[in-house]
Formats: sequence, C-alpha cells, structure tokens
Amino acid sequence: MSTQRPPLITLTSDFGTRDPYVAEMKGVLLSEGPPHLQLVDLSHELPRHDVDTAARFLAAAVPRFPAGTVHLAVIDPGVGSARAALAVACLGQYLVLPDNGLITDLSAGCEACVAITTDKLVRGELSATFHGRDVFAPAAARLSAGTPLLSLGPSLESPTLRPRPQPRRLGDRLSGEVVSVDHFGNLRTNIARAAVESLIDDHGPCAVICGAFRGPLQDHYAQVERGKALALFDSQAQLEVAIREGSAADELACEVGAPVEVVRRNSIS
Amino acid sequence: MSTQRPPLITLTSDFGTRDPYVAEMKGVLLSEGPPHLQLVDLSHELPRHDVDTAARFLAAAVPRFPAGTVHLAVIDPGVGSARAALAVACLGQYLVLPDNGLITDLSAGCEACVAITTDKLVRGELSATFHGRDVFAPAAARLSAGTPLLSLGPSLESPTLRPRPQPRRLGDRLSGEVVSVDHFGNLRTNIARAAVESLIDDHGPCAVICGAFRGPLQDHYAQVERGKALALFDSQAQLEVAIREGSAADELACEVGAPVEVVRRNSIS
Amino acid sequence: MSTQRPPLITLTSDFGTRDPYVAEMKGVLLSEGPPHLQLVDLSHELPRHDVDTAARFLAAAVPRFPAGTVHLAVIDPGVGSARAALAVACLGQYLVLPDNGLITDLSAGCEACVAITTDKLVRGELSATFHGRDVFAPAAARLSAGTPLLSLGPSLESPTLRPRPQPRRLGDRLSGEVVSVDHFGNLRTNIARAAVESLIDDHGPCAVICGAFRGPLQDHYAQVERGKALALFDSQAQLEVAIREGSAADELACEVGAPVEVVRRNSIS
Repeated sequence: MSTQRPPLITLTSDFGTRDPYVAEMKGVLLSEGPPHLQLVDLSHELPRHDVDTAARFLAAAVPRFPAGTVHLAVIDPGVGSARAALAVACLGQYLVLPDNGLITDLSAGCEACVAITTDKLVRGELSATFHGRDVFAPAAARLSAGTPLLSLGPSLESPTLRPRPQPRRLGDRLSGEVVSVDHFGNLRTNIARAAVESLIDDHGPCAVICGAFRGPLQDHYAQVERGKALALFDSQAQLEVAIREGSAADELACEVGAPVEVVRRNSIS
Repeated sequence: MSTQRPPLITLTSDFGTRDPYVAEMKGVLLSEGPPHLQLVDLSHELPRHDVDTAARFLAAAVPRFPAGTVHLAVIDPGVGSARAALAVACLGQYLVLPDNGLITDLSAGCEACVAITTDKLVRGELSATFHGRDVFAPAAARLSAGTPLLSLGPSLESPTLRPRPQPRRLGDRLSGEVVSVDHFGNLRTNIARAAVESLIDDHGPCAVICGAFRGPLQDHYAQVERGKALALFDSQAQLEVAIREGSAADELACEVGAPVEVVRRNSIS
Repeated sequence: MSTQRPPLITLTSDFGTRDPYVAEMKGVLLSEGPPHLQLVDLSHELPRHDVDTAARFLAAAVPRFPAGTVHLAVIDPGVGSARAALAVACLGQYLVLPDNGLITDLSAGCEACVAITTDKLVRGELSATFHGRDVFAPAAARLSAGTPLLSLGPSLESPTLRPRPQPRRLGDRLSGEVVSVDHFGNLRTNIARAAVESLIDDHGPCAVICGAFRGPLQDHYAQVERGKALALFDSQAQLEVAIREGSAADELACEVGAPVEVVRRNSIS
C-alpha cells in the first residue's frame, strides 16, 4: 500500500441531517473531487445561522488536521446575496466558506485568500439558496484535486471579520465574558490561561466569579463533588466554569455574554 | 496512487445514532464488503417510519453521486413482515431498500429491480427486527464487491410506489401543497419552477399564497428583511416559502399538506 | 487496486457534534495515524456520562467489525482524575477507552489490557479536560499504525467492570428488567432468548408482563396492529417489548430498571 495520504475534505455546517443538503454536497464532492478523496464530517449540528460559534469551532478544529486538508464550512445566512465566496490558504491547509466572518478566529494563520469566481465553476444552474452544493463544494473538490488557489478567483485583501471582545485587566482584576456554552453546559470564556497566570504572578492565588459561582481554580473536574461548580482551564487553555457531571449553563443561569471575573482570592469572602 | 475510485456505500436511515444499529450495519458492510470500501453517511436522522420524507430525500441526494455508488436506505416500519427487500439499478447506481415506497421519487430512473432472496445472503440467524443489518447491509456489500444485481434474486416488475399529489392549473391559478418542512423551517412545495414560469408567460407577474403569507416571488433570502416571509425557488427548482433567518413553519403555522397557490399578482390586494 | 484493507478507527462518544471535540479528535487521528487510515463514526449521541449504555452499545457493535479495527470510545465523566486510560485487545480488534466500566460487556472477549502511559504519548501539554484528544486519540493512532499493544503501558489484570443484574428463574417464572430504551422507544431487556426457550420447553407457551402490557411472544412487529404493544426477540436475541410504530417507553410508562416477567401463558387472564 502506498504511503501517500489520500486527499481529505472535511464538512462543517448548520444544516442538520434531516434534509438532503449534506448528502447533496457529499455527492458533488465525490463526483467532482479526486478519485481517492476521503470525506470527514466535523459537524452538521452547529447552531443555525450562528457565524460566531462556527468560527470558534473551526479555530479549534482546523489546526489539528494534516497539511493539505480542505475544510468546507457552510454557515451561510446570506446565501444568494452579494457576500463573496472565499477560498483561503491557512496553516498549510485550505478553507472554503462564505465571506461572513467565519474565518475570524483563524485569520492570524491565513496565507492567501481569493473571492471565488463562480462562472467557470458551476455546472448547470446556480441555485439562489444552496451555494454549499453549487459553489463551495465544487471549489473544495477542485482544491482537493490540486487546482491552485489563485486560479479560483481574484485575491481578496480583507475578508470580513467579526468583532471579538477582549478581556480587560484592571489592577488585580481580570474581566471577560462567556463566549460559548458546550454540549455539557460548560461555560467557555475569552480569558486565556496566560492572562490568569500573569495575574497570579502579580497578586497571588485567585478566585473566579461567574453568576452565582465564586471559587478557586481547580485542575480537573474530579476535584469537586458531583453536582458542584468549579473553574478550570479547558482543552483550548481558556478559563472554563463547569458543574461536575452537570450543566453550569442551567444551574448558574449563565449564557453567552455573561461577565466572568478573576480576582485575588482574599478579595472575596 | 491509482486513479480508480474506491467503492462507495452510502447509509440513510431513521435509526438515530443513540443505539448501536447504525454501528452494527457499518461493521457488517466493512466486514463483508470489498477491502477498499468507503462508507458515507447521508442521514440517520430521518423522521421515524416516514417513508415519504425518506423517498424525497433519496431523490434529491442520489443523482449527485458518482456512477457505481451503492445506497443503503433503511426506513422500514414493516420489518419482519412479508414486504420484499429490493436491490435496484437506478441512474447508473444501486439502491438497496425495503419495498415500501422508498423508491417512489427515483422510479423514473430505475433500470432493473430484484426482490432479494435471503436464503444464501444471510450469515447465521435472520433477526425479525433488524433487516438493515441482516439483509440490506449484506446485499449492499455484495453489490459493492461486484456481485451482479440479477444474482441477488428474481426480477420484480412493479416495486411499491407511494401516491404523489400533483399540483393543478386552473386558468390563472396554480394549486399545490407543502410536501416537506426542512431543518430551517422552510416550506418546500410540489409546485415546480417550470409550472410557475408557464403561468407567468400566460398571465404576467404572479404572487404566492401560503397560510398567512401573500407576496411576490423573490430571487434569494436576502431580498427581504430578517424575520420577513418570502417565496422563491429552492435548490431543487421547486417553489419554497421561507422566513429569512426564521422558521416559516412556525411563524406561518403551516405543515406538510398545507395548500399553496400561485395567482396573478393583481388578483390579490 | 491492492486487496489489503486500509486501517480503520471507529469513534464513539457522548460529545455530540455541536462542539469541536469530535473534530479535534479526528484531526489528531488523521495527523498521527497511518496515511491510509479511514475513520468511521459509530455515535457521538450517547447519553451524557452514561457508562452503562455506552458499554452495551460497544458490545453490540464491536463484534461486527473486521479484525484489526481500532475502536476509540470516550464516555469519560472522570476525565482528569486518577482513572486509568486503557488499551485493550479484544475479539481480534482493539479498544482504547477510559477504565470506568466501558469494557464491561465485552470483557469475556478481552485478550490483553494495558494502562496507557501518557509520558511518551502526549505531544505538547496534556489538558485536564480532554483526554479523548490528548491521550485516547494518540494511542488509537499508534495502534492503528502497528505499534504493539504492550508498548503502550503496563499490563492491567482487572479493568473496572460495572455490575450487571442477571434475570432469575423461579419455577415457571422468569424475572428480569428493562436495561435500555432505544430511539424508537422499544424496551430492551436482560432476558435472553435461550432462557425463554428453556422456560417454554419446561412449561409450554409463555406470556410476557411489562408495565401495563400482558401478551404472548410474537415473531415480528407486523403481527400486531399499528399502535399495539407486543413482545418479541430483538436483534441481539434478547426479549424486547415494543409498540408497533409507536413508543413502548412512552405508552407503557416504562424506563430502564422496570421489571419484566415471563410466565406460563395460562397463568394470566
């Protein structure tokens, strides 16, 4: 067996799989892509029309994949409007996605970006409602087969980026917010481990405040009893507030945007 | 690397993935299929026991796949009864599925159809509740490995077909109905673009009526404001009624079977 | 095309796919695994933190797969605690999973078991919350690439096993319980076909009692009318109580742990 890796295309969408949309994209990819193409589902269950969540999803997933992987990502509330379709070289891989901010959290790794010209790409009629099938999948298939990025359309200097609230450090206090709630109800924040460690270096042991929760940093879930809340660093090295084997979102009544603070431990009772 | 495409089997079911059923079928396919077999999930989230929705799903997805693909589709409320198990040559591909109407919307493309004889196919005991694993998956594995269709059982002239209500044209009025509601709450109808265009040719600009919605045809979602309803042609070139970034099913209180009309634009206020 | 089968890794988790966790694991597997690796999703929709359901899921699925398949299974409420990470040779295949009882229902087929030593396995930092990505996926990738099981860590004699209630036979009566409820609402029990057949051999035709249901054994769903309850043997040759095209769990108000009895048919009215 050859040691050459077969071409990979991943799929990410908010389509669900009750409808034929994902299946239609897979058919196009397999029909128009290289013969040994392998498809890898990342998710079709992203929240509908939620570009911010999808952008964070891609930023966590893409860096784990091997060089040359093509990522097709379609969360596209503006389908059919004038928003561009992008093909992006990023971290030694490729992304094909609408120009609506989906690339935001990977923008630091972007090496080149083009606005896909649909004229030569689309076979048959271009639908107004399903560019995933009619534009993004054919473009991903071509990249996977070795078509150069720059042949897909003109370069685009500035893809659309979404605003990203940054945490603030004021003296012995670090203020950020919940940026996502995962499947387990864990609250993921925009406060990075490095910022917390810098605070600790300057002011000693810290505590975390989020909704009704006040407590020290822990190393892992099993350090508290089942049903108890804790703060720890998640697998992206970001501050997370969780309930062991429970839902912090439900039990602390917190959602995306809720304020999170890291303070000196002896400043709270 | 060879330029020969590896054999493909797709999977479509109403099984969900909480239970081991899909996993068991994949194990059988990989154990009994050709060595380079690739599996492609189309959906396991089809509505339970809903043959009509699944038949429409297959009709949208199958034509997108490359020649020789084998599609395993198990929505099978009659499992264990006398209903036949079918293997069908269709559009240069194969389908393996129960004879309960699942093939309805692809029947025009069918080239040959056999009723699978289970005697020689089944290894070990044939369960009464899971022909997906015990009959359909082994048959799909054999087709994928090159076993001729006609060796799987006797030809069947007339597979079971489900009734399909057709839209009616009465003078300057086209009457159809909602045939499915997608994940986004979009209402998909049985009125084809060609029928609407013919109406427009004869009577000029038209308007669409569906539940509380009355409005002209639009080209794409972004032509109306967020939260507003519109009518347009969907990615199957069928008339669709939608709410931009919202659910038409919820907000117009429409479901499958709801009447949809296309009329002359100046005939409504 | 070669006749050698490409290496297979299956994935099973309670992660859902709304979050990037599954995608991150897939990236690690494809980056660190052998070049022709194929990934196969079994499920990411297992009930959260429910080790018993996941253990039964694996016991149904794993035996169907070809020799040499590697199964990565992450239902891991104790992540970050002292629980070991296991690599297991079982039924000619491999499993990589936490030592929390997930192996219970496959333990009879286990050939060797090691506690994974993470020192040499982990690239970069080991997170406290996501061993699926940082420990289990790298171990699965190595096994798939041919690394010997015993090189992953020291042998473990007794992996953790969960208790499994056994049905009891008392004279002409067999008493068991519901052990799972599937996606269709079917009630799956711990009473095996062989035990029922032995009862019938000794005492003649039998009847099944479960919640409000009392009735004889049937061969398949279609033997009763739509909406009616029945008892039959499921695809694992276990006694099941179902409603034809309905949910027995809902309509009989039964859940996991509910008692099920098999009695002589003439002992009930």
